[in-house]
Amino acid sequence: MFTPQPIGLVRCSFNDATTIPKGLGAQHSQEGLLEILPDFALGLTDIEGYSHLIVLWTFDRAEGFDLLVTPPTDNRPHGLFTTRMPRRPNPIGLSIVELLGRDGNSLRVRGIDMLDATPILDLKPYLSNIPSEKLRRGWLAEAEARKG
Amino acid sequence: MFTPQPIGLVRCSFNDATTIPKGLGAQHSQEGLLEILPDFALGLTDIEGYSHLIVLWTFDRAEGFDLLVTPPTDNRPHGLFTTRMPRRPNPIGLSIVELLGRDGNSLRVRGIDMLDATPILDLKPYLSNIPSEKLRRGWLAEAEARKG
Repeated sequence: MFTPQPIGLVRCSFNDATTIPKGLGAQHSQEGLLEILPDFALGLTDIEGYSHLIVLWTFDRAEGFDLLVTPPTDNRPHGLFTTRMPRRPNPIGLSIVELLGRDGNSLRVRGIDMLDATPILDLKPYLSNIPSEKLRRGWLAEAEARKG
Repeated sequence: MFTPQPIGLVRCSFNDATTIPKGLGAQHSQEGLLEILPDFALGLTDIEGYSHLIVLWTFDRAEGFDLLVTPPTDNRPHGLFTTRMPRRPNPIGLSIVELLGRDGNSLRVRGIDMLDATPILDLKPYLSNIPSEKLRRGWLAEAEARKG
């Protein structure tokens, strides 16, 4: 196994997890910066052509995990791997952000749902969608329907 | 930083990276198994309701990285973080797979693009798409157009 290393840090106004929108219908429209370390900046070449990026990062303030959890989107317990909750065997978070602009090593993005100073592990281009008519969203769709 | 640990292994017929479809128009329709270790199986509760999963895994046979790379989808170099290539500062792979069925700790899926015995780090539900009219795919779209 590899040893994780940050390639950069998130800069945003979320200093406390309670301030990040969660639950059914949560909107992630927050803007912020992905500040990539100078050692890795060459890897950003041509990134301006992409509208959306996949960001992998660490839940660096989470410890341990439970395999059955009650997420903020429901009042019933579900398997951890059907949720995006922070406390995981490998505490890796995933966000899809919209790339608004680039200033050197710094990417301005919309869709931040991480805390300020979160270590970034990787960036990948967002390339394609699953056709919506083929997508089933399990208990989350049921929770939305119950909420009506 | 955390210490990565496998939560399971991929089981499939790809034993050699050269046999995995790559490049423009590559189809990932290969079926295989995500075998989750018994210690983590409770985390799969309710997963059958989801049609698609995000799988995070390790490029465990990749070493080192270059920040400018020429991917199989183009004949020009691009920044590593605009590609899905294996040799990365944190060698984490991401695949979207279709969940076909579950037998205990074993998930049968379509869309395998990993090698047999690849360690799995995490599973997350695939929940939503970026509207296609908002998606720009940078140099990849240009390479497709040139190939036209």
